Amino acid sequence: MQKKGMLVVISGPAGVGKGTLCRALLAQSTNLDYSVSVTTRASRPGETDGKEYFFRSKEEFQKMIENGELLEWAEFLGNFYGTPRFHVEAMLNQGKTIILEIDIQGGKQVKNLYSEGGVFIFIVPPSFTVLSNRLRGRGTESEEVIQNRLARAHEELENVKDYDYVVENNDLKEAVEKLKSIIVAENCSTKRVVFFSKEE
Amino acid sequence: MQKKGMLVVISGPAGVGKGTLCRALLAQSTNLDYSVSVTTRASRPGETDGKEYFFRSKEEFQKMIENGELLEWAEFLGNFYGTPRFHVEAMLNQGKTIILEIDIQGGKQVKNLYSEGGVFIFIVPPSFTVLSNRLRGRGTESEEVIQNRLARAHEELENVKDYDYVVENNDLKEAVEKLKSIIVAENCSTKRVVFFSKEE
Repeated sequence: MQKKGMLVVISGPAGVGKGTLCRALLAQSTNLDYSVSVTTRASRPGETDGKEYFFRSKEEFQKMIENGELLEWAEFLGNFYGTPRFHVEAMLNQGKTIILEIDIQGGKQVKNLYSEGGVFIFIVPPSFTVLSNRLRGRGTESEEVIQNRLARAHEELENVKDYDYVVENNDLKEAVEKLKSIIVAENCSTKRVVFFSKEE
Repeated sequence: MQKKGMLVVISGPAGVGKGTLCRALLAQSTNLDYSVSVTTRASRPGETDGKEYFFRSKEEFQKMIENGELLEWAEFLGNFYGTPRFHVEAMLNQGKTIILEIDIQGGKQVKNLYSEGGVFIFIVPPSFTVLSNRLRGRGTESEEVIQNRLARAHEELENVKDYDYVVENNDLKEAVEKLKSIIVAENCSTKRVVFFSKEE
């Protein structure tokens, strides 16, 4: 019996390094696939439709939203970006493990659709002590700026409770190892394992 | 703040190879500790009291039950096996990750006490043919005992649903890697991560 795939959602505050983490994870793993997003921005030289992005017009994108064809979507600098449901579901049905790197708002939308089958990982910056020491160590920010940054980070961390795992992005190599372990462990999770029959 | 330890319960049918797996896991990990069981069975050549098991008489074992000194205990083929409660709890309070290798009945008892904090892993054989060959390969059990164990293994597989993870013991190295990944992943689990306080 063919095993169904797994959707791994990697999210976290802007600037936490989730893009770098995901690229390192994909580079080291042969059995993972990146989810390809739909965008309304123009393709750049060298980009291929269906590889870096699915390039669509704003009208087409709007129709995809209306038809429920997007797992999540967002506007950024006048362009739209989204995750096409058909693409993700096709890969899941092929038994693939798909990495979906998105911001916190997008993560919330996906959670509503895949709360059962998805694996939700939240990337956090190193602890506040470390962050605070780094900021103060620089000596370039005022205490007010530092306090504001810490307060905002606290707010963003409130979202952690909706995720299955939290990975601190302190050391890149260590964080990638943790992501790989989470994927291996989830594949051993009782809720995902299909058993051989008694007759075997 | 000191992190509380993690109790990793590794269980599965007799002869599935959980002992070999656990020894390999412990040999490769510096941050894991083995929970040593108490047993009334006779020690086999090469076994040392307090290392593989605490070897005790049936009278001594009975007293431990009466005094609530066992986290779980069971009778198996005329002998008693149990886990000394204070030993495990002391290690957990020290923040250690403890590997508890026990049979399925024992797993159930521990589950009742540690359903929140414990990690429950069920080891399954690749197939019953392999399990049967392994039991016979030992050369220490009679055919009747082997048949009883196989029948029981079928029943025991029904218990998988009470466990968090299932690891097939086909290739030792691969199975050990899975166990290690599960421990790493569980340490990233949102429910286990203690966040730094706002005051930090």
